[in-house]
Amino acid sequence: MGVMSFRDSMFLLAESREHPTHVGSLLLFDRPEDAGPDFLSDLHRRLVSDRTVAPLFARRAVRTVGTLGQWAWEPDEDLDLEYHVRLSALPRPGRIRELLELVSRLHGTLLDRHRPLWEFHLIEGVEGDRFAAYFKFHHAMMDGVTGARHLQKTLSTDPEDLDTPPFWQVDPRSRKKKPSTEVATRETGVLERVGSAVTESARTVASAVADTVRTTNSALGVAPVLANAFYEGLAHRDTALPFEAPHSMLNVPITGARRFAAESWPIKRIQRVRERTGSTVNDIVLAMCSGALRRYMLELDELPDRSLVAALPVSLGTTGSGNQLGAILVTLATDEPDPGVRLERIKASTKAAKGNLDQRDPMAVAALSLAVAAPLPLGTVPGLSSVINPGFNLIISNVPGPKDPLYWVGAKLSGLYPVSIPLDGQALNMTVFSYADNMEFGLTGDRRAVPRLQKLLTYLEESLVELEDVADAADG
Amino acid sequence: MGVMSFRDSMFLLAESREHPTHVGSLLLFDRPEDAGPDFLSDLHRRLVSDRTVAPLFARRAVRTVGTLGQWAWEPDEDLDLEYHVRLSALPRPGRIRELLELVSRLHGTLLDRHRPLWEFHLIEGVEGDRFAAYFKFHHAMMDGVTGARHLQKTLSTDPEDLDTPPFWQVDPRSRKKKPSTEVATRETGVLERVGSAVTESARTVASAVADTVRTTNSALGVAPVLANAFYEGLAHRDTALPFEAPHSMLNVPITGARRFAAESWPIKRIQRVRERTGSTVNDIVLAMCSGALRRYMLELDELPDRSLVAALPVSLGTTGSGNQLGAILVTLATDEPDPGVRLERIKASTKAAKGNLDQRDPMAVAALSLAVAAPLPLGTVPGLSSVINPGFNLIISNVPGPKDPLYWVGAKLSGLYPVSIPLDGQALNMTVFSYADNMEFGLTGDRRAVPRLQKLLTYLEESLVELEDVADAADG
Repeated sequence: MGVMSFRDSMFLLAESREHPTHVGSLLLFDRPEDAGPDFLSDLHRRLVSDRTVAPLFARRAVRTVGTLGQWAWEPDEDLDLEYHVRLSALPRPGRIRELLELVSRLHGTLLDRHRPLWEFHLIEGVEGDRFAAYFKFHHAMMDGVTGARHLQKTLSTDPEDLDTPPFWQVDPRSRKKKPSTEVATRETGVLERVGSAVTESARTVASAVADTVRTTNSALGVAPVLANAFYEGLAHRDTALPFEAPHSMLNVPITGARRFAAESWPIKRIQRVRERTGSTVNDIVLAMCSGALRRYMLELDELPDRSLVAALPVSLGTTGSGNQLGAILVTLATDEPDPGVRLERIKASTKAAKGNLDQRDPMAVAALSLAVAAPLPLGTVPGLSSVINPGFNLIISNVPGPKDPLYWVGAKLSGLYPVSIPLDGQALNMTVFSYADNMEFGLTGDRRAVPRLQKLLTYLEESLVELEDVADAADG
Repeated sequence: MGVMSFRDSMFLLAESREHPTHVGSLLLFDRPEDAGPDFLSDLHRRLVSDRTVAPLFARRAVRTVGTLGQWAWEPDEDLDLEYHVRLSALPRPGRIRELLELVSRLHGTLLDRHRPLWEFHLIEGVEGDRFAAYFKFHHAMMDGVTGARHLQKTLSTDPEDLDTPPFWQVDPRSRKKKPSTEVATRETGVLERVGSAVTESARTVASAVADTVRTTNSALGVAPVLANAFYEGLAHRDTALPFEAPHSMLNVPITGARRFAAESWPIKRIQRVRERTGSTVNDIVLAMCSGALRRYMLELDELPDRSLVAALPVSLGTTGSGNQLGAILVTLATDEPDPGVRLERIKASTKAAKGNLDQRDPMAVAALSLAVAAPLPLGTVPGLSSVINPGFNLIISNVPGPKDPLYWVGAKLSGLYPVSIPLDGQALNMTVFSYADNMEFGLTGDRRAVPRLQKLLTYLEESLVELEDVADAADG
C-alpha cells in the first residue's frame, strides 16, 4: 500500500457530487469491413474474459486509520472487470447528437471509490457503420495528457495488426509495447517544455506548499494554505496575471450535470491560415475559440466589455510521475469585432506570455499552475470560489496527438475527442487534440451554466471561415 | 419556499456517494401492434415538448442561509425537461439480462441536487417487441409506495385510452384523474393498517425525536440522538426485537454500485400453495425468499447457524404527507432444511409479530420503525453501522398493487418491478409488488457484497416448486 502524492490526493479531497474530478476521451471507430452484427458484443465478451489488468488499473484509493487519514493506493483483490468494461447502445437513429447526449450523461456520474478509478464503455449503434468508446478515469490516477498518450500507445498504425491489447492490460510506464506512433512536433501544440529554471523553482514552492498541507488532516484544512499561495500570486499580478479577467457567464457555480460537444477540423485548413498570417497553429486554435465565444455570448447578450482571458496549460517538463503542468494567461480579444485584429492581439499575447515565463516570480508561477493544473481545491472549498477571481475565464488546452491514423482490433479510429472537467467558476472547458489530419475539439460544459453548448461547434466553423478570409486577404 | 419535513430531509442529510437514497420502478411494456420503428423516439420527442410539470416534480431541494441551513423546497424556475426525460437503448441482443444490467447502472448514480429529484428513462431495443421505462425518484420527494401508487394512477385499464399523461404532469395529491385501478385487498400484502393506539404513540415518540434533532444543525449531529433512540429499542428487545439476528454476508458496508434482478411469478401458483397450507400470500412470499436465501448462502458457504431475521414494513396508517411506515420482525427459518417446517415457523412468526404489535413498547416501535422506514441516518453516520446490530438481516417489502392490466399510450404494461435502496449493513433488499396476475419480485443488492444476484431468481423458482410439493402433500 503506497501513500498517494499530495498532488494526486488533492483531486480526491476536493471532489464533491457537483465536481467529479475525472477526465475522459471519446473515441469514434469505423467498424471493420468484415464485422458482423455481433462484432461489438463479441468484442465486449472477449475483453471481459481476459483478466489481465496492469497494476495502475487494478489499484484503488483508500483512506483508513492505517494510513493516518492520508489517501493511499492498494491493489483491489476482488477486481470486477465487468463493472469497469461496459457495453452500451445508442437509441435510433444513432446520430452524433445521440452519442454526445450519452457521453454527457456518462461523464456526469461519479466513479465508484471502492474500485479502481476508471470505466470503459463500448457503444454500439452509431450511424454510418461506426462504433464508439468512452474512457473515463480519475485525475488522481493519471492526468488527461498522460491518459491520452497511454491510450495511443495501445493502438496500432497497422490495420492488419490485431494484437492491440486494451489499455488496462498495459502499464503506462512499461516499455513492453513499443509506442506505435510518435507525438506531433512541438509546433502543433502548446504543451512544450519551458525553461528548467522555472521548473525547479516552481517545484520547490509547490513542494513547500504540499508539505504544509500534508500536516493538516482534513479537506477543509487545505483551504487557507492554498488560498494564501493564490493570494500571493494575485499580489504579483503585474508579472503573473497581466490581464484583468472580466466576470462572465462562464464564471459561476456549477451543477452536477454536463453537456459535451465535439467536432473535427482538418489541420490543413488551420495550417493554411497559420502560414498566410505568420501565426502558430496554437494562435489559430485560440482565434477560433475566441471568435466562437464572442458570437455565442453576443447572441445570449452576455459578452463582457473587456476581453475574456484564457489559461493555457503548458508543460514545465516531465518527471517520473508524469507531466508537471504550468500555465500561461492570454487575452482572447473577444472585445474586438474584427477577426484580423483579434488574431494579431492573440498572437502578441501568447508571444509575450511565453517570453516572460522565464522571468516570472516562481511563487506566482506556482500559484497559477496550481489553479490550472490542480484547480479543484480552490474551486470547491465552500465559499472560496465566490470570493476569488481566478484571473482567467476559461481553460483552453491544446494537446499534440498522433500524426498517423490508428487502429484498434482492426477498426480505424476516425475521431478522438477529449472530455474534460468543468469547475466551479469555470463552467466551460475547451480542449483540442490533434490526431492524424484533424484537430479534434472537445467542449465540456456545465449543463445549466452553458446552454445550447452545441452551437459553439457551428460558431467555431464560422470563426475559422472568417480567419480564412483574413488569410486570403493577407495573401492577396 | 417551504421548509422540508424532518423525515424527508433526513434522506438528504444522510445521503452519500455510496448511499444514494432514491428508489425506482422498472416498467416493461409491449409495443402497440401498429408501432413503427420510431415509436419510442417519437414518444420521447412528444413527452419533452410538452412543458406541463406538476408542482411536486418541478421543485428542487435547497439549503441556504435564508433557510437557516434547513433543507427546503423551491420551484425550479429553469426546469430542463430534457434532462429528466431521457431516451436510452439496449445493446444487442436486448435480453432481460441487458436490461437489468442497464437498470443496475442507472440505479447506481446520484440524482442532481440542483434539479427536481427525479429521472425517467425510456429504453428501446428490448427483445420480444417490447420497450421499458425506468423511473427514479428521491425518497425525500416521495416514498416508494406513494411513487408506485402515483405511477399507477397515470396508467389506464383501457388499451384504447391514449389520454394517459406521463406521471410528472399529474400531481399525486390531486383527484383530477380518477384512479383507474384499485389496490389489491389487504390479504395480498403486508402493508395493512395496524392498531391506531400504536400509531399515535409511535408518532408521538418519532416527533419528539424529530424535535430534538431539528435543534442540531448538521448531518453528524443527528447521530447520537437517533442512536439513543435505537439503543432504547435494543434495551426492550424482549418485546420489540424478539429474535437475535445472526451476522451474515448481507450485513456489511456497501459500495456505490448496484446489482438489480427482477422476475414475475403467477399469483395463481402462490394462491394455490396458500390455500392448501392455510397460509397468507405474504407467508408464501416470505417462504420463497427464505428458501432462495438459504440455497444462495449454502452455495457460497455463508449460511449462518441461526435463522436470518427479516424486517417487514407495515403501514401505521395514512396521514396527509403519505404513509407512516412501521415494521415487524419475522424469522425466516433459514436454519431449517425442511421447506414444510420452514413455512410453519414463518407463519407462526408473522402471526405473533402482528398480534404483539399493539402491546409493544411505543419507544421500541418507534426505534424499529425509524430503522426500517428511514434507515439511512443510522446506516450512514460514519462508524455507526459497524457498531449497531440492527436486529434484522434484510428488509423484505410486499406491496399490494393493481389487479387489472394497465396501459400507457396504448402499450400494455407487462411487468412492473420495484428497485429499492441497499444500505450499509443491509446489502440486499427484496421488494415484491403484485400486479394483475403476477407477483413481481425486485431484488436490489450491492454489487460487491451480493455476487451473482441473478441466481436468487432461479432459487426463488426452486423454492416455490418445493412449496408446491409441500402443498400437494398437505392436500393429498
